[in-house]
Amino acid sequence: MRDNRGMASPVNPPRGMRDFLPAEKAKRESVLGIIRDTYRAHGFDEIETPVMEDSDRLHAGLGGDNEKLAFGVLKRGLKPEDFTAATEALDLADLGLRFDLTVPLARFYASHHSELPSVFRAIQIAPVWRAERPQKGRYRQFVQCDIDIIGESGVLAEVELIAATAAALAALGIEGCSIRINDRTLLTSMLSVLGFAADEHAAVLITIDKLDKLGQEGVVAELRERGFTPGAVDAFEAFLRRPQTMEFLPFGEAAIRKGLPEGIDDSAVQQLAALAEAVDPATLQLLQFDPFLVRGMGYYTGTIFEVVHPSLGYSIAGGGRYDGMIGRFLGRDVPAVGFSLGFERLVDLVDVPATDAADALALVHDGTASAAELVALKTALIATGARVRVEARTKNLAPLLEQLKQGGFTRFAPVAAGATVDSLEFRDLR
Amino acid sequence: MRDNRGMASPVNPPRGMRDFLPAEKAKRESVLGIIRDTYRAHGFDEIETPVMEDSDRLHAGLGGDNEKLAFGVLKRGLKPEDFTAATEALDLADLGLRFDLTVPLARFYASHHSELPSVFRAIQIAPVWRAERPQKGRYRQFVQCDIDIIGESGVLAEVELIAATAAALAALGIEGCSIRINDRTLLTSMLSVLGFAADEHAAVLITIDKLDKLGQEGVVAELRERGFTPGAVDAFEAFLRRPQTMEFLPFGEAAIRKGLPEGIDDSAVQQLAALAEAVDPATLQLLQFDPFLVRGMGYYTGTIFEVVHPSLGYSIAGGGRYDGMIGRFLGRDVPAVGFSLGFERLVDLVDVPATDAADALALVHDGTASAAELVALKTALIATGARVRVEARTKNLAPLLEQLKQGGFTRFAPVAAGATVDSLEFRDLR
Repeated sequence: MRDNRGMASPVNPPRGMRDFLPAEKAKRESVLGIIRDTYRAHGFDEIETPVMEDSDRLHAGLGGDNEKLAFGVLKRGLKPEDFTAATEALDLADLGLRFDLTVPLARFYASHHSELPSVFRAIQIAPVWRAERPQKGRYRQFVQCDIDIIGESGVLAEVELIAATAAALAALGIEGCSIRINDRTLLTSMLSVLGFAADEHAAVLITIDKLDKLGQEGVVAELRERGFTPGAVDAFEAFLRRPQTMEFLPFGEAAIRKGLPEGIDDSAVQQLAALAEAVDPATLQLLQFDPFLVRGMGYYTGTIFEVVHPSLGYSIAGGGRYDGMIGRFLGRDVPAVGFSLGFERLVDLVDVPATDAADALALVHDGTASAAELVALKTALIATGARVRVEARTKNLAPLLEQLKQGGFTRFAPVAAGATVDSLEFRDLR
Repeated sequence: MRDNRGMASPVNPPRGMRDFLPAEKAKRESVLGIIRDTYRAHGFDEIETPVMEDSDRLHAGLGGDNEKLAFGVLKRGLKPEDFTAATEALDLADLGLRFDLTVPLARFYASHHSELPSVFRAIQIAPVWRAERPQKGRYRQFVQCDIDIIGESGVLAEVELIAATAAALAALGIEGCSIRINDRTLLTSMLSVLGFAADEHAAVLITIDKLDKLGQEGVVAELRERGFTPGAVDAFEAFLRRPQTMEFLPFGEAAIRKGLPEGIDDSAVQQLAALAEAVDPATLQLLQFDPFLVRGMGYYTGTIFEVVHPSLGYSIAGGGRYDGMIGRFLGRDVPAVGFSLGFERLVDLVDVPATDAADALALVHDGTASAAELVALKTALIATGARVRVEARTKNLAPLLEQLKQGGFTRFAPVAAGATVDSLEFRDLR
């Protein structure tokens, strides 16, 4: 009937998507719980939006390249004659699965702003979908943990987001991260100072964004190849090769000035410096000014930041200010800034055991006790606050006990006909 | 571009789907947490599957009428010539959003059975999607809370599921529910005794399933109208009108025998009676034998049950034994039984306040304190274990305080320049 027959196994999840077995699911929920609790402590409130949005909104130009990766969801009740007339896949779908949590948040805020505080601090912990070519570490369904502050134009918003994110990483026991920070206004000012024409800026930034991947020479070569103002590319190359470039100073006004060419817009410098002044001392130590940090999304208008972990070649969190986006839905601009944790990258870094506060007890019966007896024992033990599971004894007991131990059970008791709660003899599984 | 322009508001969620604001989201998470904790205490383990399954699996005939309501997700990279050849909407989509959690569980079990305990007790708490005509109380995205036991053919499985479900309802403070129970084998035996031909059974059950909606006369009229064996319909009518029909006795063998016509398969009676013997006394009080309970899904093979709340005209939970389904994916039959809570119906019935264990403090500043001062105060208070939010004082303080109170904040302190943690004077918000 359809052409996806002959798949490797008829019982696997769809390509690029994953099942989570009990141990992994428990770990994921523990990690999400720690993140959620930290964000709530920092004054944020959790919200939820549907997994789908109307196609027109997902494809309004706010999602950058991710828009192309949105899964389309078929309109109901289409007739064959509609297909014949269709010229592109998207015309068949009036809904799509969200590719990030920012576009839905902007839509949500526009819909509900009158019911929300004037400064709204949102938590969203939810899956997103991208129809990417599946590869190691890239999934077509993955979880993002976003916090956003809408309605605050001052630097307090950035500081609160950065502090909450740093606190979440600390609560998860992830150490050694740095938070790289820059400002789109500084980037623009830097490009002007170096001699790039204003209409070249967006394209130049796309190349500079590849610095991690291509290296300094590769970026300069690509800038030449793409034919940008030659004098500006020369100036950029000279600036890039200064000895002090990429040397991360303690974050603050001096570091920002030292990291940039002469002649930068002073108000933009002052604004980022104000963030350094406001942040708490522990978080300040994690911050590094990175004059070449770009962040891909075109919607950023001010501060941008990302979290780099020492053992990974990519960021585990990122965000920035996007003062123009809410206006696309609401009709008037509202300042907004957000920070998104890449949960799938994070969860592999942490070692959070799946724990139950309660005692976890296994009743291993030999087949002689009646169902009524087993249920009565289980009910009585649950009433004491324990987690309880009934298991039939296997000929070889060791694998069963190992499985129970792996499943987080702490003690087990053999059960035979006539057993009472008081007669059970529990033994440690750990 | 697409024909869904001109919608009432450009910022609403898609038709039939909902946004959840902080208070509602917090309540939903609290309720889900109580359900999850109860099910874990009863020995179940949570798993997760992707929201999508391959279309062939969703449309394998296991989902009954719900299959028709599955949202199709567009195959990537379709070319216009593919559309021209398409003859039905489903042919364009190689993926679909799950319409329930049972089909994905069967697929999951077939994929992972070698990594799972021989008796596997699964929790699934997750959204499902159905492209139904939106109407009051019916949503196109809604959450189900399922528990299933796979690999246990004995009545212990049913008893564990019923006990866990009853415990979850009790933990949520939902009182007065009854759990109606029947067995497909008894239904079949009843229809045979009344004189219906075996090949009429499935169709007759569809009509009997409407007893709540059509009433006794309506059901009898429809059975006649649909032309089933006239003598059997007469016998059914007489049986239905017996004075003792619909009189719910304490659940047990006597009640089962009294609720059915003479001549029923005795082993089926014994099997359901064994369930009554095994269940704990508190749960037994909730159980009622309902000889006319059908439950729509064709895949049920044995016991079926549903939870009825006194104030509602519909069930809030339901389930049953479906011993044939796993085999459709795995190639060999494995016994299975499940119980699903209708979370959206449930959440409206309960009054669970959104609570934080911690103190929730608001710092209401007058604009004189610096961002650094506010951040330092916030950081210090979070370190004491409190939830903290910084708010700018509004001219009229009352609405801000009311909003904080509604948001679960317990105390607030005015903050001015020079404030220290020790100088803050907190006042109660409640």
